Amino acid sequence: MDDEHLPKEKVLRDPIYNYIYVDNRIILDLIDTPEFQRLRRIKQLGTTSLIFHGAEHSRFGHSLGVYEITRRICNLFQRNYPSKNPGDGLWDDHERLVALCAALLHDVGHGPFSHTFEHIFHTNHEQITTQIITSPETNINKILRRVSPDFPKQVANVITHTYSNPQVVQMISSQIDADRMDYLQRDAYYTGTNYGKFDLERILRVMRPYEGGITFEISGMHAVEDYILSRFQMYMQIYFHPVSRAMEAILEHLLERADKLYKGNVTDIDFAPQMLTPFFNGSFTLQDYLTLDDGVLTTYFASWRKFPDNILSDLASRFLDRKPLKSVIYSAETEPLLPKLRDLIQTAGFNSSYYTAVNDSYKLTYDTYNPQVAKPQTQIELIQPNGELVELSQISTLVAAISGKVSGDQRFFFPKEMLEQHQNIEIFDPIYEDFQAHIHNNQIINPN
Amino acid sequence: MDDEHLPKEKVLRDPIYNYIYVDNRIILDLIDTPEFQRLRRIKQLGTTSLIFHGAEHSRFGHSLGVYEITRRICNLFQRNYPSKNPGDGLWDDHERLVALCAALLHDVGHGPFSHTFEHIFHTNHEQITTQIITSPETNINKILRRVSPDFPKQVANVITHTYSNPQVVQMISSQIDADRMDYLQRDAYYTGTNYGKFDLERILRVMRPYEGGITFEISGMHAVEDYILSRFQMYMQIYFHPVSRAMEAILEHLLERADKLYKGNVTDIDFAPQMLTPFFNGSFTLQDYLTLDDGVLTTYFASWRKFPDNILSDLASRFLDRKPLKSVIYSAETEPLLPKLRDLIQTAGFNSSYYTAVNDSYKLTYDTYNPQVAKPQTQIELIQPNGELVELSQISTLVAAISGKVSGDQRFFFPKEMLEQHQNIEIFDPIYEDFQAHIHNNQIINPN
Amino acid sequence: MDDEHLPKEKVLRDPIYNYIYVDNRIILDLIDTPEFQRLRRIKQLGTTSLIFHGAEHSRFGHSLGVYEITRRICNLFQRNYPSKNPGDGLWDDHERLVALCAALLHDVGHGPFSHTFEHIFHTNHEQITTQIITSPETNINKILRRVSPDFPKQVANVITHTYSNPQVVQMISSQIDADRMDYLQRDAYYTGTNYGKFDLERILRVMRPYEGGITFEISGMHAVEDYILSRFQMYMQIYFHPVSRAMEAILEHLLERADKLYKGNVTDIDFAPQMLTPFFNGSFTLQDYLTLDDGVLTTYFASWRKFPDNILSDLASRFLDRKPLKSVIYSAETEPLLPKLRDLIQTAGFNSSYYTAVNDSYKLTYDTYNPQVAKPQTQIELIQPNGELVELSQISTLVAAISGKVSGDQRFFFPKEMLEQHQNIEIFDPIYEDFQAHIHNNQIINPN
Amino acid sequence: MDDEHLPKEKVLRDPIYNYIYVDNRIILDLIDTPEFQRLRRIKQLGTTSLIFHGAEHSRFGHSLGVYEITRRICNLFQRNYPSKNPGDGLWDDHERLVALCAALLHDVGHGPFSHTFEHIFHTNHEQITTQIITSPETNINKILRRVSPDFPKQVANVITHTYSNPQVVQMISSQIDADRMDYLQRDAYYTGTNYGKFDLERILRVMRPYEGGITFEISGMHAVEDYILSRFQMYMQIYFHPVSRAMEAILEHLLERADKLYKGNVTDIDFAPQMLTPFFNGSFTLQDYLTLDDGVLTTYFASWRKFPDNILSDLASRFLDRKPLKSVIYSAETEPLLPKLRDLIQTAGFNSSYYTAVNDSYKLTYDTYNPQVAKPQTQIELIQPNGELVELSQISTLVAAISGKVSGDQRFFFPKEMLEQHQNIEIFDPIYEDFQAHIHNNQIINPN
Repeated sequence: MDDEHLPKEKVLRDPIYNYIYVDNRIILDLIDTPEFQRLRRIKQLGTTSLIFHGAEHSRFGHSLGVYEITRRICNLFQRNYPSKNPGDGLWDDHERLVALCAALLHDVGHGPFSHTFEHIFHTNHEQITTQIITSPETNINKILRRVSPDFPKQVANVITHTYSNPQVVQMISSQIDADRMDYLQRDAYYTGTNYGKFDLERILRVMRPYEGGITFEISGMHAVEDYILSRFQMYMQIYFHPVSRAMEAILEHLLERADKLYKGNVTDIDFAPQMLTPFFNGSFTLQDYLTLDDGVLTTYFASWRKFPDNILSDLASRFLDRKPLKSVIYSAETEPLLPKLRDLIQTAGFNSSYYTAVNDSYKLTYDTYNPQVAKPQTQIELIQPNGELVELSQISTLVAAISGKVSGDQRFFFPKEMLEQHQNIEIFDPIYEDFQAHIHNNQIINPN
Repeated sequence: MDDEHLPKEKVLRDPIYNYIYVDNRIILDLIDTPEFQRLRRIKQLGTTSLIFHGAEHSRFGHSLGVYEITRRICNLFQRNYPSKNPGDGLWDDHERLVALCAALLHDVGHGPFSHTFEHIFHTNHEQITTQIITSPETNINKILRRVSPDFPKQVANVITHTYSNPQVVQMISSQIDADRMDYLQRDAYYTGTNYGKFDLERILRVMRPYEGGITFEISGMHAVEDYILSRFQMYMQIYFHPVSRAMEAILEHLLERADKLYKGNVTDIDFAPQMLTPFFNGSFTLQDYLTLDDGVLTTYFASWRKFPDNILSDLASRFLDRKPLKSVIYSAETEPLLPKLRDLIQTAGFNSSYYTAVNDSYKLTYDTYNPQVAKPQTQIELIQPNGELVELSQISTLVAAISGKVSGDQRFFFPKEMLEQHQNIEIFDPIYEDFQAHIHNNQIINPN
Repeated sequence: MDDEHLPKEKVLRDPIYNYIYVDNRIILDLIDTPEFQRLRRIKQLGTTSLIFHGAEHSRFGHSLGVYEITRRICNLFQRNYPSKNPGDGLWDDHERLVALCAALLHDVGHGPFSHTFEHIFHTNHEQITTQIITSPETNINKILRRVSPDFPKQVANVITHTYSNPQVVQMISSQIDADRMDYLQRDAYYTGTNYGKFDLERILRVMRPYEGGITFEISGMHAVEDYILSRFQMYMQIYFHPVSRAMEAILEHLLERADKLYKGNVTDIDFAPQMLTPFFNGSFTLQDYLTLDDGVLTTYFASWRKFPDNILSDLASRFLDRKPLKSVIYSAETEPLLPKLRDLIQTAGFNSSYYTAVNDSYKLTYDTYNPQVAKPQTQIELIQPNGELVELSQISTLVAAISGKVSGDQRFFFPKEMLEQHQNIEIFDPIYEDFQAHIHNNQIINPN
Repeated sequence: MDDEHLPKEKVLRDPIYNYIYVDNRIILDLIDTPEFQRLRRIKQLGTTSLIFHGAEHSRFGHSLGVYEITRRICNLFQRNYPSKNPGDGLWDDHERLVALCAALLHDVGHGPFSHTFEHIFHTNHEQITTQIITSPETNINKILRRVSPDFPKQVANVITHTYSNPQVVQMISSQIDADRMDYLQRDAYYTGTNYGKFDLERILRVMRPYEGGITFEISGMHAVEDYILSRFQMYMQIYFHPVSRAMEAILEHLLERADKLYKGNVTDIDFAPQMLTPFFNGSFTLQDYLTLDDGVLTTYFASWRKFPDNILSDLASRFLDRKPLKSVIYSAETEPLLPKLRDLIQTAGFNSSYYTAVNDSYKLTYDTYNPQVAKPQTQIELIQPNGELVELSQISTLVAAISGKVSGDQRFFFPKEMLEQHQNIEIFDPIYEDFQAHIHNNQIINPN
């Protein structure tokens, strides 16, 4: 391992941290693998970049950022809390490399438009991350094995939360981990919003290792509170944006339609999704997966624009040309009206299976802070001068206000055309009028 | 045109200007066209994002930015220098819409990796921009015709510098135009460097229309000077980065190889570059062009990785996996040594036509400030209290120092393997030793 | 009034807004008055700059900032909501100048270390602001009278909330007014903290005039929420900082001691507080007040360092040399222990009247958002698409969490010496031990 | 010394570096001395804050900033270039504390409005800095002596450039030292201009100790170049601002007038400059000097407003109320016209000794980069891969352009009244007309 230490550290220019520092050849070589370079071709925020046009950044920069924050945490831990005896609950710097590798690679199994793709094709980016790290066929695995034969497995364990040292696990995955700290800041920077900003330097300074993992000095309570609020606001304002969800609905229906056509034996050469075929067939290799990226999908979509299936070609165009569905909020009370609205849409000429959707931000992978749930990593604990731990929501009015409560909305998505005023064919007018009477103040209402 | 005015302006969140304001439906509808949305899929900086990983932004955001700066210039001109009589040399706000449309659309003809692609396939993004604006088949043309039948032609004229009003032309294209002011700031933001920052607000405030175009109040001399320096530094530090030029060399050779294979009638299905075929054939429609984007090219590259031509597959992998050629500087004096170096490389097993390149940043489209050249737009003139104009380099020592001088370098690119120390096959050792003896302090030398 | 319009606007460089724009000679001349220039010599944050050393900015820049925000609000109102008929509840741009003047002058009556000074000498900066505006003797009054004879009174009425147009009043003084929006941002910038940042441009964009004053479009709810949170965090982290309150306690006791000595007829020449005499005597002119500034007070403090009254000279040194008192938190339960602690301090040789203090951040002029209180300006109301208003805390979980609740603490201040370990004179040891036994985890406890 | 190491480092929040880190009790105690705290009451930029109103920061924050940069340089040197053998030209970390103390204290001898004050009263802030450090009477000296008896002298030697280790001297005082790097950034931040920004992190990374002092890796050439340009622009735009020089002219004449009155035995109680008396008398103690600050001077100025000497009272008011003199540029050719202009001003009723001035920015303490001058510290040398040094202006076109050349102007200052159009007393009209005929385009001309 020592011979992997670089005599002089390398730097990569980064807009969030100015520089990212690398002083170990293992890290440098991991960055240079095809598997890691592929992350340049996978957008961090998927369809969100269609709303916040500045946010076209990829998972490549984010992965470097998580690495960099982890490196800084290790430096601070080693300086301020170095372990003197095994089991003293302080930081053992032999853990540094496994932490850095796990940080760098934690997202390496992500595919294009992950959430939607996984939903349709039953893939799982966390499993694939583990596979990339542990399969002897990958370049990443080869490099990790230079450290030791079981090093790839150790790195994978960190990612699956089964690694023995809870400090390492919590660095990469906990309520305040390097992953979240990077993406909140990075997404804020690229979207051009202020919400994701918090005092990273101060949070790192008040972090402390202990036998149970990582805690925070109570003097840093307001910095931690500010981080939780930033996260809440990023979800409300950016990640749950209704137009982004509308574009995801189109993407989902587009892939569903392609899947259905494929399974219906449409073999027209123009359809030609060679790189997708393994996924339609439900049987893909790691290499098949690693060939995919955002550009592969949009290239197929471009070819589908001309395919003689109206639904496929129209949805492909809507996605590429950014023609989102419209949406309105519904409640438990107005949910029973949805079938009628779907019927009206169908009558107006849109296949309602492909042109409507419901999407519940409550069910999105929302990152709520919920200390009541019995998982250790969902707790943020602060350490008092006398060594006692206190859970964050016990002392922060603001965090208590949002703990375990999910703010969000349920939306019904439908073609924008349903809201238009003047239709050419008068016979359809009553359909549109009826539909529009169900909508008031961006909500579904019962017009009667 | 009046009915195109939006009752309440729309905004798009932008990381450079915070918000981009749209209050005319023409602009909104142009943004929503497939031709304009395609710009989301074309990176602004091409291979530079492989060096500055933060700079993955597309031409979409840049185009909006040029629009926004133009809008601000129009506002300031209309407020401070409104024309009272035709021909008084002041700002006629009837020119606003043509200026805004030209600003928004000035890059709409760009294709993927423009410079390299154009070089290989003899396309021209400026011509195509004009075509997109003036061809009746495009959505953009349809929208522009809502203003008047000859409006598309007017917009195109601004872009080709043949429009009658020099103020409008210079807003979009001159030494200090909305295009350059946006990309310097935007590229600085995304790369994470400071060099491109200058005081935009102050430059806009000292801009003034006059009968000959646009001039600047002399009180703003230092702000203008600072802009010229920023531009100089961005070229030196970012746009001319040797690794970026090395990746472009690989891209160029990769496309050349594919072209050669195609023309050699390789029709293997795996090669399958349907969307590229019209360009190999040298006969493409506007629609063929508009189907291309970065993702289409990289998808073909991905499929070429497995193609049974070693050069094609290797170059495709080098490009996708970011394996740049190495480079050294040569001079007029050492240029005669290049044939020998190419021979050594060929002997070492690399086809030197595809694995070496020369690239001269002096010949890159460098944006030098050169007032001696007899083109009016290459002059920056400042207006004194008494109305006389003075050219910038006459009063700025710093600008004089770089005017008309091109700083740059000539580089020879070759495979990194030529620099490696220990080759497996001893018989090759003398080749490598000979090659390496020609290189000293990153420069080619004559070892004898 | 028209002849006061500047042909070309002037700008002042400002670190928060980049430029502050002035296009009316009245404003320019007001800035140039001695009364307004005096604000350069009065720190915005008083003793807080002794904790956040970057925050040495004066009320001068803040006053310009409040003017600039007001100017921007007027511009947006005039553009988007211009009144067409009297009484239509929209913006009447004739109100612009009175709004701008009130914004600029709202703090002109502030003296040095206002809160403490006012407390000791029974002055009132709001009354003095009104006096400065309405007294014929001031330069400010003379300039305002150029507009009309009753214009000074109108400006003063805005500041005392008695002006007829509630929109103008609320611009300057309401839950989201130009005053608060400037100081939160400005104080955040100068302290170097992030907490005070919010999306000013967005808040201004969603502001709307209506007959009852100013409301906000519901689409801007999150931006308004973010502003309320920023304000909360600035109070918690900056304005209520315990060391700042400790320095204020010293200042207060120092002025009390000087007042007592003066009233005891100490007339030693070294004491010599000519400029303070009117305030000791309780009878001062406007001119006496306008002669004061931070430098005058600290100059007297410097002369008092050598004055032969131990308490006066020691407190003066402690203030100038930044030697804060220490503090601990107490509660209703432990408050009864304070007399005993004061006795111990007195026994240890400190006059407890001058060397202890209590300070309750609950009673500081905390700017809580409390919609329950029956004052119209304490409500933030958002307007829905159908025109109905809804109060902010009804729809924001976060704002509801902090509405009307005051977070803060009660602190007991005492000499740092009481916490020291080794005293020279052994006889005093038990006093210190007894005192220290009452303190645990920064709180007062009952040791028995 | 070891027992001065703090178990856990303290931080001070700073707007430029976010946090300033202190981990040695010596540093903490130096900050807490009255001599150092006094720097809070001395503005960094003197009269410049009257033009850039945001720049009201004191020498206190700057001194902390110089300390912080020095600390970072030491950290990087110790990490990357630790000395292994005495005399190997690498960094000996035993030098850290002397470097840090010198950095912190380098400006501790500054007085109020230093340049002007020194000019009138023949004081010298560098000498006084040395005195404060080496006089046994000061708190600073007492703390430094805790390290060793000769430690104060060592610290003073660094400041007077006589310390044995050139690396330490150049850290604090050279072309690229911690002092300049801090003030350029800090002054840019507080003025709100962009000019002073450069890539500090990169410059620190390319700094290298060698036996002759400090050099820079050639790979960092552009970052060093950018720093030199930033400095040039800060001088041109901020430090040489004509209005700031006009206010200094008033200050200078005001102090001259007071000095003359004092020496003329004016002893009126209202004049009362007790704290200035030692300086009028030309015989002051260190304690006299340390009592002075900006507030003491402005307090005297305030009292002088009412003093029955028209020149003293008028100049005091002009200074406090910010009424600058006007200025025009003159050249060697037009300099002979100055006597005539002074005569006209005298005739118009202004004492021309007190109401005119000339000021030559060429003679200001301009920080030009001039490698030709034979002082080692005026060279910036870059180290090539083969270890050879090359001087910066040899390889940077831009730096060569400004090396040794001083850009600036010569200005003649006079009362604004001379430019006014309508004088009440007609008899004076020809005087004003004659004067104004000599001014054209902000320059003195010969009207004949």
